Amino acid sequence: MLFAGIMSGTSLDGVDVAIADIAGNLTSPRIRTVAFRTQAWPRAVRDALLAVSNCDTHTAQISRLNVLLGELYADAVRETCLQAKLDIRTLRAIGCHGQTIFHEGRATKVCGWPIASTLQIGDAAVLAERTGISVVNNFRARDMAAGGQGAPLASYFDYSVLRSKKHGRVVLNLGGIGNITALPPAATPDQIFACDTGPGNMVIDQLAQLATKGKQTYDRGARLSLTGKRNDDLIRELLREPWYRTAPPKTAGREQYGAEFIARLRRTKLSLPDLMHTMCAFTAATVAEAVGRFVHPVFFPDELIASGGGVHNPLIMRYLAEFLPTTRITTTAEFGVDPDAKEAIFFALFAACTLKQQAANLPAATGASRPVVLGQLTFAAAR
Amino acid sequence: MLFAGIMSGTSLDGVDVAIADIAGNLTSPRIRTVAFRTQAWPRAVRDALLAVSNCDTHTAQISRLNVLLGELYADAVRETCLQAKLDIRTLRAIGCHGQTIFHEGRATKVCGWPIASTLQIGDAAVLAERTGISVVNNFRARDMAAGGQGAPLASYFDYSVLRSKKHGRVVLNLGGIGNITALPPAATPDQIFACDTGPGNMVIDQLAQLATKGKQTYDRGARLSLTGKRNDDLIRELLREPWYRTAPPKTAGREQYGAEFIARLRRTKLSLPDLMHTMCAFTAATVAEAVGRFVHPVFFPDELIASGGGVHNPLIMRYLAEFLPTTRITTTAEFGVDPDAKEAIFFALFAACTLKQQAANLPAATGASRPVVLGQLTFAAAR
Repeated sequence: MLFAGIMSGTSLDGVDVAIADIAGNLTSPRIRTVAFRTQAWPRAVRDALLAVSNCDTHTAQISRLNVLLGELYADAVRETCLQAKLDIRTLRAIGCHGQTIFHEGRATKVCGWPIASTLQIGDAAVLAERTGISVVNNFRARDMAAGGQGAPLASYFDYSVLRSKKHGRVVLNLGGIGNITALPPAATPDQIFACDTGPGNMVIDQLAQLATKGKQTYDRGARLSLTGKRNDDLIRELLREPWYRTAPPKTAGREQYGAEFIARLRRTKLSLPDLMHTMCAFTAATVAEAVGRFVHPVFFPDELIASGGGVHNPLIMRYLAEFLPTTRITTTAEFGVDPDAKEAIFFALFAACTLKQQAANLPAATGASRPVVLGQLTFAAAR
Repeated sequence: MLFAGIMSGTSLDGVDVAIADIAGNLTSPRIRTVAFRTQAWPRAVRDALLAVSNCDTHTAQISRLNVLLGELYADAVRETCLQAKLDIRTLRAIGCHGQTIFHEGRATKVCGWPIASTLQIGDAAVLAERTGISVVNNFRARDMAAGGQGAPLASYFDYSVLRSKKHGRVVLNLGGIGNITALPPAATPDQIFACDTGPGNMVIDQLAQLATKGKQTYDRGARLSLTGKRNDDLIRELLREPWYRTAPPKTAGREQYGAEFIARLRRTKLSLPDLMHTMCAFTAATVAEAVGRFVHPVFFPDELIASGGGVHNPLIMRYLAEFLPTTRITTTAEFGVDPDAKEAIFFALFAACTLKQQAANLPAATGASRPVVLGQLTFAAAR
């Protein structure tokens, strides 16, 4: 059987490629060189590699954190099993998203090549070695390699688990950012669409920290927000941003709702409770805006299925019902999926897909040219 | 079947772990949440992640180069097949070492944890997508996860391909750095040992560039070196460094033979041709020193099997024969392995091992606690 091997050394000469015919038992294989070729690095790439390979603090830190996160992920899995009184060996595989330290869905020129990229750390080798369980990780890269944005990956889960023959549905996740997946009744994969809607909890969380001088990281049960009142002028003014009218696919970055956004809110001179209450309404309003503008032209959703931390904010949930009066508001719990666990669960599903060599991206949602098998498999043990 | 999923988001709340029971067809699975838990990041880790995730040039550059290298690796494989008139679809898999941008075999404290790490870039997802061939990459990480130094990986290849029942052998690779694997007659895996010996070609290459004002990157056929003469005082002086007497395992870094080493040579006032000739002899002398000091106490090698660019330097080869008079000097070509292709070929072998879920590290060589399956598998296509 033929195998290609690639080596590019620290001498930075270029890329060595060998094609070898490998036969026999792999502990005593017969090997024949079928082809060999060295391809020099383009000059600009060589220079960039030299620069990035210099052992300055930053690259070292990425490398070390990658391994450290593997250790911490392993700890987290072990602890989870322990608390659930589950023998870790009953796990067939672990799907690990990793920690994104860079994501750029649109291509920029790098040494002359158009490059879109994403970088997650959290070493699968350490995770597999510590847990004794096979790991699948690095899910976004392949979708991007196929021309997608590497996000949203949730759509595949929403499609495969939450679609209905009879009902039109909108699946809403309220994490830091809010996003929806639209599932027309009896949808086929190419009819799915998804987009970010605006803030999820991150604005309310920041205001809660300000209001409690850092004592609370979020507004538990919307208690503080409930002491304020809604300011519709502010909601209307914020919704005037062209971003909310931009057609999907679109993503909202954390920077969009960071310190600058908070400063803008505070310039209104509204009290913190009023701002918080208004932001609960604003989160619901941006969801209603996206549903009205992008979903209604296609179908009227019978149900909105929410997940993420936002489902625990009764004020957001109340405003969702108020702003989408013809849609029943529920959560993924109704479908056996803990609303807090949903994101982690879809990486479990992705791991299952990868083990079965099954594609798990929805090109209609990510923009990829085709469905591809996501992730990389790290084997727990020798066969 | 149970699967674990792990998610840790940009909000840096911590690590979400879900255990899900996944049943049925994976396009319409039945899913039940069995366990869910959030483990907060330790404060120091969260801070470090915040710092490293800031989109400053360096992290972005690593992420982009990772993808760019995937593209370039794919180009290199395609070109190799084209030139060899080989249909790329006949490849069963690609084993890709990637480009190391950081390697630290010994643990340092990171946020309080002892961490050894290695970081290779060159995206397997891009490589698999562009070639249509499954890829195995990231070979060193697992050996390190099992307590090894992630190097030398060559030993497994040397052991499985080049060992002999009758003959004691030393396998020598002369890349930028020189290294040997010692294979006693009828060796078992635990009897193998390996170490770096000193410079391979990198010192001679640097001197050749100086001598030709950058026109040549190496001394082709040792032509320039052959015009100089050997200086034994310098060889003796250089060999006095304690590093050469340090017992294996040990590695030599590029920094050991970089600008500072060259400056030291030039302070001798010897002519460049004399220095080059002397360095050819020195490369051979460091090999002979390592063989005499570390191999001879165990066995007397009948054969030294060389590979790497150094085999094309007749002066190094002549001095190897002179300094190891009782050992027959040959190259891997005698065993069907192109001496220039050897490193790339062992990543082809490693890919084959990973596909068969077979361990491919030699704990005796790397220091790992046990043999482990190396690498991560990226599937070319859906089944």
